[in-house]
Amino acid sequence: MRRMSGKVYIIGAGPGDPDLLTLKAVRALERADVVLYDRLVTAEVLKLCPPKATLIYVGKSHGEQRFQDRINSTLLNLAKENKVVVRLKGGDPFVFGRGGEEWAFLNAHGIAVEVVPGLSSALSLPSLAGIPLTYRGISASFAVIAGHRQEGAELNLAAVARVETLIILMGVNERRKIAQRLIEHGRPPDEPVAFIENGATPAERVITSELVSVAEGRVEVHPPAVWIIGKVVNLRRCLAPWGDSSLDEHSGSSLHLAMK
Amino acid sequence: MRRMSGKVYIIGAGPGDPDLLTLKAVRALERADVVLYDRLVTAEVLKLCPPKATLIYVGKSHGEQRFQDRINSTLLNLAKENKVVVRLKGGDPFVFGRGGEEWAFLNAHGIAVEVVPGLSSALSLPSLAGIPLTYRGISASFAVIAGHRQEGAELNLAAVARVETLIILMGVNERRKIAQRLIEHGRPPDEPVAFIENGATPAERVITSELVSVAEGRVEVHPPAVWIIGKVVNLRRCLAPWGDSSLDEHSGSSLHLAMK
Repeated sequence: MRRMSGKVYIIGAGPGDPDLLTLKAVRALERADVVLYDRLVTAEVLKLCPPKATLIYVGKSHGEQRFQDRINSTLLNLAKENKVVVRLKGGDPFVFGRGGEEWAFLNAHGIAVEVVPGLSSALSLPSLAGIPLTYRGISASFAVIAGHRQEGAELNLAAVARVETLIILMGVNERRKIAQRLIEHGRPPDEPVAFIENGATPAERVITSELVSVAEGRVEVHPPAVWIIGKVVNLRRCLAPWGDSSLDEHSGSSLHLAMK
Repeated sequence: MRRMSGKVYIIGAGPGDPDLLTLKAVRALERADVVLYDRLVTAEVLKLCPPKATLIYVGKSHGEQRFQDRINSTLLNLAKENKVVVRLKGGDPFVFGRGGEEWAFLNAHGIAVEVVPGLSSALSLPSLAGIPLTYRGISASFAVIAGHRQEGAELNLAAVARVETLIILMGVNERRKIAQRLIEHGRPPDEPVAFIENGATPAERVITSELVSVAEGRVEVHPPAVWIIGKVVNLRRCLAPWGDSSLDEHSGSSLHLAMK
């Protein structure tokens, strides 16, 4: 296939802290003529873009197809103008990021794509908050699902209900129903859970509780948040001696890490 | 708790390419007095360590406990000497990396730990090879398991058998038995699979096949390799027009990405 013109970088911005971008991502951003970025890309990350770059916000609520089509055609048109185009997505572009769809679309139109994976919030935010997803003798498997399914599709919770550690992205608004169904599928009502709100930003807040409390609507949390379910949540007590397990703990992630 | 002395950074080195380390990881390495590194950390990544740093290889086969105990006490002793100590692990330290155990041990001994997540091979190598783990209409969930369980523990394949996309790390030697059991648990025999050998290095090789071929011992592959099972493997045809699906495809990842 002959390449027509410019190039699109599909880049993961990681969980929010600009220091958690990869070297490759930073270098690509430095060369960008245009950056199309999503809702979850933080202002601090955008500061890595060069002054000459045009920044285009394309955050959309739950990915309506017509918005996606517009993003695809914008990427295509800019690449045809020989621009260096960066498509910047929060976390990793291929974990519910529709990065694959954009890649396929651009490939089908003869545009070169370079992929730079990013730290998925699903994996990195738990570790930063003192919750390793695997731990010998406690968890040797984890699953990641989106709590919000498009076009009325049913969430296949049965398929993941028995995985030792479960991470749910975009599940805050549906948390009550999801928790109820996980208990129906056999997860213990007193299983520990954690929500990490605004992870890896100064506004980070970690909320720990039990599955049944979520099912009964007793846990207040606001999107965006990563939801972790499983015994590994309790490890936070050994790995975060600076914190506690109360329901309303405020703590910036840099404080977490410094562990003073 | 009073901190006694030095500090340990537990850092993920990502899948192998030094450009895929985070800025934070590179900065911590630059300040390191001592770096303890694992088998999967590549020579190219080690070049990021400063000349003054002492490099200590602590690669071990499948984590025998006495080796782990020795690593723990080495980390502790170096930190007590007020050294800046980096514990450098391939991929992400908390995806089967025993990073959590080292963190807990050091915390229990009053040593400050700073965590820098890395790109897990389980997520980043598939995307780099043209296999997004999620894709609208094809996969909205994925699970990651270790194919090798310690101390004779049985692999709980039943728990993950129904997840749309399955990623198995350290499963190459057990691949036949794992594939057989996944088919018994209801996965289609003709389901596409891919192995990514030596991912994100010049020696990368991607092998695609079907689950039944693995079960029947007809797929040759050598560790280290990431094994992906699910329909998303077929997306590689749309996302990697430079490649093909033959059983013995050789292709460096940088060639993949350039897509000339």
